[in-house]
Amino acid sequence: MIDISAFFKTRSKKAGMAPGTLMHVGERLEEQVTINRLDYAAGFCHRSTPATIDECLEVEKRGDMVWINIDGLHDVSVIEKLGSRFAIDHLSLEDILNTAQRPKLEDSGHYLLIVIKMLYFSEESGRVEVEQISIVLGSDFVLTFQESRGDVFGSVRERLLMGRGRIRKMGADYLVYAILDSVVDHYFIVLERLGEEISALEEKIVVNPTNDTLQALHQLRRELIFLGKSTWPMREVVSGLERSESNLVSEGLSRYLRDLYDHTVQIIDIIETYKDLVQGMMDLYMTSLSNKMNEIMKVLTVFASIFIPLTFVAGIYGMNFEHMPELSVPWAYPLLLFLMFLGAMAMLFFYRRKGWW
Amino acid sequence: MIDISAFFKTRSKKAGMAPGTLMHVGERLEEQVTINRLDYAAGFCHRSTPATIDECLEVEKRGDMVWINIDGLHDVSVIEKLGSRFAIDHLSLEDILNTAQRPKLEDSGHYLLIVIKMLYFSEESGRVEVEQISIVLGSDFVLTFQESRGDVFGSVRERLLMGRGRIRKMGADYLVYAILDSVVDHYFIVLERLGEEISALEEKIVVNPTNDTLQALHQLRRELIFLGKSTWPMREVVSGLERSESNLVSEGLSRYLRDLYDHTVQIIDIIETYKDLVQGMMDLYMTSLSNKMNEIMKVLTVFASIFIPLTFVAGIYGMNFEHMPELSVPWAYPLLLFLMFLGAMAMLFFYRRKGWW
Amino acid sequence: MIDISAFFKTRSKKAGMAPGTLMHVGERLEEQVTINRLDYAAGFCHRSTPATIDECLEVEKRGDMVWINIDGLHDVSVIEKLGSRFAIDHLSLEDILNTAQRPKLEDSGHYLLIVIKMLYFSEESGRVEVEQISIVLGSDFVLTFQESRGDVFGSVRERLLMGRGRIRKMGADYLVYAILDSVVDHYFIVLERLGEEISALEEKIVVNPTNDTLQALHQLRRELIFLGKSTWPMREVVSGLERSESNLVSEGLSRYLRDLYDHTVQIIDIIETYKDLVQGMMDLYMTSLSNKMNEIMKVLTVFASIFIPLTFVAGIYGMNFEHMPELSVPWAYPLLLFLMFLGAMAMLFFYRRKGWW
Amino acid sequence: MIDISAFFKTRSKKAGMAPGTLMHVGERLEEQVTINRLDYAAGFCHRSTPATIDECLEVEKRGDMVWINIDGLHDVSVIEKLGSRFAIDHLSLEDILNTAQRPKLEDSGHYLLIVIKMLYFSEESGRVEVEQISIVLGSDFVLTFQESRGDVFGSVRERLLMGRGRIRKMGADYLVYAILDSVVDHYFIVLERLGEEISALEEKIVVNPTNDTLQALHQLRRELIFLGKSTWPMREVVSGLERSESNLVSEGLSRYLRDLYDHTVQIIDIIETYKDLVQGMMDLYMTSLSNKMNEIMKVLTVFASIFIPLTFVAGIYGMNFEHMPELSVPWAYPLLLFLMFLGAMAMLFFYRRKGWW
Amino acid sequence: MIDISAFFKTRSKKAGMAPGTLMHVGERLEEQVTINRLDYAAGFCHRSTPATIDECLEVEKRGDMVWINIDGLHDVSVIEKLGSRFAIDHLSLEDILNTAQRPKLEDSGHYLLIVIKMLYFSEESGRVEVEQISIVLGSDFVLTFQESRGDVFGSVRERLLMGRGRIRKMGADYLVYAILDSVVDHYFIVLERLGEEISALEEKIVVNPTNDTLQALHQLRRELIFLGKSTWPMREVVSGLERSESNLVSEGLSRYLRDLYDHTVQIIDIIETYKDLVQGMMDLYMTSLSNKMNEIMKVLTVFASIFIPLTFVAGIYGMNFEHMPELSVPWAYPLLLFLMFLGAMAMLFFYRRKGWW
Repeated sequence: MIDISAFFKTRSKKAGMAPGTLMHVGERLEEQVTINRLDYAAGFCHRSTPATIDECLEVEKRGDMVWINIDGLHDVSVIEKLGSRFAIDHLSLEDILNTAQRPKLEDSGHYLLIVIKMLYFSEESGRVEVEQISIVLGSDFVLTFQESRGDVFGSVRERLLMGRGRIRKMGADYLVYAILDSVVDHYFIVLERLGEEISALEEKIVVNPTNDTLQALHQLRRELIFLGKSTWPMREVVSGLERSESNLVSEGLSRYLRDLYDHTVQIIDIIETYKDLVQGMMDLYMTSLSNKMNEIMKVLTVFASIFIPLTFVAGIYGMNFEHMPELSVPWAYPLLLFLMFLGAMAMLFFYRRKGWW
Repeated sequence: MIDISAFFKTRSKKAGMAPGTLMHVGERLEEQVTINRLDYAAGFCHRSTPATIDECLEVEKRGDMVWINIDGLHDVSVIEKLGSRFAIDHLSLEDILNTAQRPKLEDSGHYLLIVIKMLYFSEESGRVEVEQISIVLGSDFVLTFQESRGDVFGSVRERLLMGRGRIRKMGADYLVYAILDSVVDHYFIVLERLGEEISALEEKIVVNPTNDTLQALHQLRRELIFLGKSTWPMREVVSGLERSESNLVSEGLSRYLRDLYDHTVQIIDIIETYKDLVQGMMDLYMTSLSNKMNEIMKVLTVFASIFIPLTFVAGIYGMNFEHMPELSVPWAYPLLLFLMFLGAMAMLFFYRRKGWW
Repeated sequence: MIDISAFFKTRSKKAGMAPGTLMHVGERLEEQVTINRLDYAAGFCHRSTPATIDECLEVEKRGDMVWINIDGLHDVSVIEKLGSRFAIDHLSLEDILNTAQRPKLEDSGHYLLIVIKMLYFSEESGRVEVEQISIVLGSDFVLTFQESRGDVFGSVRERLLMGRGRIRKMGADYLVYAILDSVVDHYFIVLERLGEEISALEEKIVVNPTNDTLQALHQLRRELIFLGKSTWPMREVVSGLERSESNLVSEGLSRYLRDLYDHTVQIIDIIETYKDLVQGMMDLYMTSLSNKMNEIMKVLTVFASIFIPLTFVAGIYGMNFEHMPELSVPWAYPLLLFLMFLGAMAMLFFYRRKGWW
Repeated sequence: MIDISAFFKTRSKKAGMAPGTLMHVGERLEEQVTINRLDYAAGFCHRSTPATIDECLEVEKRGDMVWINIDGLHDVSVIEKLGSRFAIDHLSLEDILNTAQRPKLEDSGHYLLIVIKMLYFSEESGRVEVEQISIVLGSDFVLTFQESRGDVFGSVRERLLMGRGRIRKMGADYLVYAILDSVVDHYFIVLERLGEEISALEEKIVVNPTNDTLQALHQLRRELIFLGKSTWPMREVVSGLERSESNLVSEGLSRYLRDLYDHTVQIIDIIETYKDLVQGMMDLYMTSLSNKMNEIMKVLTVFASIFIPLTFVAGIYGMNFEHMPELSVPWAYPLLLFLMFLGAMAMLFFYRRKGWW
Repeated sequence: MIDISAFFKTRSKKAGMAPGTLMHVGERLEEQVTINRLDYAAGFCHRSTPATIDECLEVEKRGDMVWINIDGLHDVSVIEKLGSRFAIDHLSLEDILNTAQRPKLEDSGHYLLIVIKMLYFSEESGRVEVEQISIVLGSDFVLTFQESRGDVFGSVRERLLMGRGRIRKMGADYLVYAILDSVVDHYFIVLERLGEEISALEEKIVVNPTNDTLQALHQLRRELIFLGKSTWPMREVVSGLERSESNLVSEGLSRYLRDLYDHTVQIIDIIETYKDLVQGMMDLYMTSLSNKMNEIMKVLTVFASIFIPLTFVAGIYGMNFEHMPELSVPWAYPLLLFLMFLGAMAMLFFYRRKGWW
């Protein structure tokens, strides 16, 4: 479940503070802050995992580019030191620390701040989980901030270390593109899982809809509402990046960014399609229920309308009046049984013609 | 409950008056008008609470900036005197006095008028309450008008008095930004409360939906409709301020205003999400009802369709015909009982296969 | 009720006529055409009510400005004479005569034609009535045309006669603004009445919804649909007036027109809100019905499922078989009664646990 | 009924043909092609009905203007000859012949092609019928193409022949405007008929809704969907004509075209309003049904819950146990009857209080 | 059925790969890659079907233009060789290979890449099938890529071979237009089939709605949702082509492209109309069900409310009290029967007046 409160719960604690006050807003997902540093140039790539931020910042830059990744946002001092080292202003740091942030793109002159949401499907809870990722793009550095370890950057890092593709030769902007691309690719995996869930539910509705199916459907709708709200601003971020006039984003990247933009639009399309499908399934469920109700009522009505009158007739001849001439007629009993049978048959025939069974 | 009538009830009293006629439109929420004055410059900040408006206006300006806050709008003369002192024109004063105003931004050359709605969650009534706040931004003064005491400006005032943050050093426009920021922050608190209410209701619908749940759901929807209508123009106000060409809004503030704008958009997003959730819960409620109806009808149908035919059979042998040969057969009674049992079992098996229980 | 047909019924009679043919389209609401003339300048104001249009047009202009108001549109010759005197072209006169007109603004060089709808709540019929008002704004004259007497211009006229406010000193455009303002103010009165009706209906739905409530709700929805359609073009008219490049609209008026525009937008907002509320009440009504149905069915099912099996048991011992050993057991009767009681209790307990009562 | 298939049925036959291939797409509505020619100038107007297209094209132009009208599109050679005489290119002729065309405006330099839909209400079928009308506007000629005879151009032709209005004096563009105006006027007649139908249905739903009412409502909705789709592009055509930079459309016509545009917008408004009304009636119908269901179930429940327990009691004393002491008590029978009566009264009182009857 | 998963299933496999990695994404629909080559100029046209891509690329260009069509995308090497021969970059080749692509238009300087979806109605599965078609437009070559054999290009190829129409004389851009036109024409055939299905379903709903009808309706809605999502970007592609500033698209083609654009818009219109119709049919189905439920309940209620009270009365006189004076009255039995008859008649009359039968 995507928790509603996660979107702004701890946010309200900040109400009344001066703008620019640094404070971690969100759940603490990690015990410790993990730092990951990659120095690379066209020819080489070196990886280090310094224990503290001071250790990390002491080391001289070795290649043309440096990429520092921080997992865990609860230690404000780490963020602050990194910020002062790379001259990130306070409003930006505040955005990085506030995990209830809306996806956004900020151009601050010598760096760009990109805040996006990463989705992953937690097999454990059976739910889509959201994590905020902030990326700072400088001329020769990239900083990334995540709420918890376990990211989708593995493949990007590997490509850098192995020297596969053009990634080492290109600038910081290409690295940011590669990161964004891997995040967006991950959306497709999540959507695929949701698609499977939709198919499974549709089957259930057709075959045997229960109250659980309804709950699952409702749950799915909720998730899609939240996903929809998360991805719309994502589109703006990517398109803002493409149209950006910052000289941090090179001309040659626009082709790649347009591709990324297309993928984002496709994600939005799929989510919208899912929403329509789930809405349609809701209608189908409701109409199926009415259909079943009709079936149930037909059974009741057929039984009741055949046997209640017959019972009445039987009741008549069960009365104890002294003067009931029919009672002594020998063939009265079999005749009555026959007439009752005829009546029941007539009713059945009538309902048959009405198409009730 | 956000009262519908509050939006324009007393407004209609003004119909037919000349434009610019000063008259308080709205409920009188305060007994007395309270005046609050802050004189400040980079180095100091002085607070005073003059008893009357004349007393307030007599005093010389002491710092670079003066911020006068008025709680209570029913005394038109106070507004009028303040207006003539700071050269606010009559149409603006009319807007300030009319608490059924739509959020708006007016550029009048030497000052900007900002009208917004402040929300707070009244624990007493369990409802969201709305209060109108008008802000006049001049080159070296800020005037704020509230319907009642008890505002959310406490933290801004404190920061000024304490000299925390950059607030004292910056101009009147930064003060207005700080005020708007604290109002917008308050929206998040209100939305958090509504979010909790939504979660609680959702739980109730799943567990045991009653008529009260339905009423609460409907009530919630009404509130969200009103909130939605209040926040949309708010967005226009903030974006208008950001894009304003007035020299009362300094260049350096745009970064802050963009941040504020992002928050406003996020608020609108959350409200839209809430609306979708509540709509989904309405559907869930309705479908749950149909589900339950089906359950009830199945119980009825199973009972009726088993026992009504059996009663008929019992009725047959309760008839008083003289010639009913079965009656004297010794094993007829136990056989009949057995056949009845078989029939009931067959029906139960049939319903079992239909999945009715 | 706002009659659908009123929007274009007699309009179809005009099909096939040459454009510019003058013909009154609409119901004849007045027996006689009433003419009202006001001559005024900064210093004075003179009112006259000439019996015929010729009498009206003979008189020399006395002040800087003249305002002629016509009540009743059925006499085409009156409109034609006035038109030729003030050089209004035939297409404009056609628009004035066609009361099924959509609100519009036409700039014809030396004059502006404004067509709007005036609403009033008829206490008699309990319905919102619509009347078309056409305004011709010239450099030194204003012509207004109404379908019937009894207008909302009383207060404007009074202000002119009394010399209150700035109205006498300002030009023809200010007079038109004042007229529009009083029309728009009247919308608020109508909306207030509808708001009261909505509140009353909501109460009824909560307490005791009947078929009449449903009819009233449907009626209200219809009215809101029509109101919505009438007010949208109104907004365009006012905004068109504000952005107009005609030199008939002075620069200084734009502040007032912006104010008027805000009010129009607020009216549209309120109508949209009302629509949402009424839609929500429809849903509430429907869901309440289902809720009640469930209650009814529970009562039926509890009664039927308890007593039908018991009746069957009683029927068993009412059979006339000769060999029914239980019948002669002395304590069989009280035991059976006790067992029946136990069975009924078990059922009640079962339904109790299901939460059915 | 507006047939769905009519929109593109025979269209599919053309799939695979080279663009510009001339072929009649649509139903053949007329046996024979009828040609109608009007030559006119400011001073005169001459009408002729040549039997063949060759006969028509042989004759010299007599006045300043010529208007040729073709009824029936199945004879491709007629269209082709006319096309080559007036230099209409093949893509345009294809559009004229394809009656499944969307309303459009094409500027081809020396002529404008306008394709619109004409509506008329067929009293015979009780349905709205659609016919495509194509108009070619040249500098000194106008060509019109209709699917069948029986048009709405009668009044335009008459005005030309009689010399009424300004129509003879003005150019080809005014003639086209007059034709479009008469087509649009006809929409109002159709809408009026639909409006009457809506009112009639609304009455039926309120008084006695049947399955037929539902069918009629559904049918109406379908028609409105199709009408809506037809009129939207119509608006674009007229607005395109108004904003056209072609010198075939004179400056002075824009006033008239704006008027026409207003009417088109009004038609769209009315259709939207009708849709909302019909949707509202659907909801009303559905809710009325639920209301009735509740009534029916109340009747059943009252009867069943009163008489089923009583029948059980009667069944008790109909049992044949030998030891039932009550049976021999003399006042037991009247007492039981009285108690039964009391019980029934209690139930009735209970349901009364519940407001069930 | 349009499978959801088809839209992105295998897509997720690519997550984590470097952008520009060539890999076939989608189902393998063909065993073998088929190559089709057409060389043509104004005067001639030569067709060849080389067995391998190398064989195809060895041959010298014979006319002004060459069109190579590839059926089957699973062999990446074929695409790669073709790409390197015509200087298509890797991102474009990736788009061609990814059959989960959204329709798009890419301008890469010396060529344009167009990706669209082709629809066809599979008689076998009774479902709409989607196939991706990629077109590369160069100055003197056109490359087309399809997922499977069996295309709709037959007619275009034939026109080229036969030299019909202007197709040979015109450039590569006209060929691309002709291909797109034949794809769009095919949409109409598919829509016609869906239209027939809608008509058939509508008939079923009116006559005898079953659960199957509901399933079919739901299925249809799903297909329309997917179709809608596929055609919207198609419109952008065509309009992008029309407004393209690439010199690969000649001026003279814009007329044709506008025509194509009109058709695309019409397709979108029809799909929207279908959606509205299907939605209306869903409502109709639901309301019909309620209507039927009412009928069923009326039957039950009439039977139950007539016979249950009568059975009770019969039960009364079936009691075995010793002191029941009525029992010995000779005419009591016939009188009771008569009264019962009267009561039943009264009930029937009552229900008749209520309009229940």
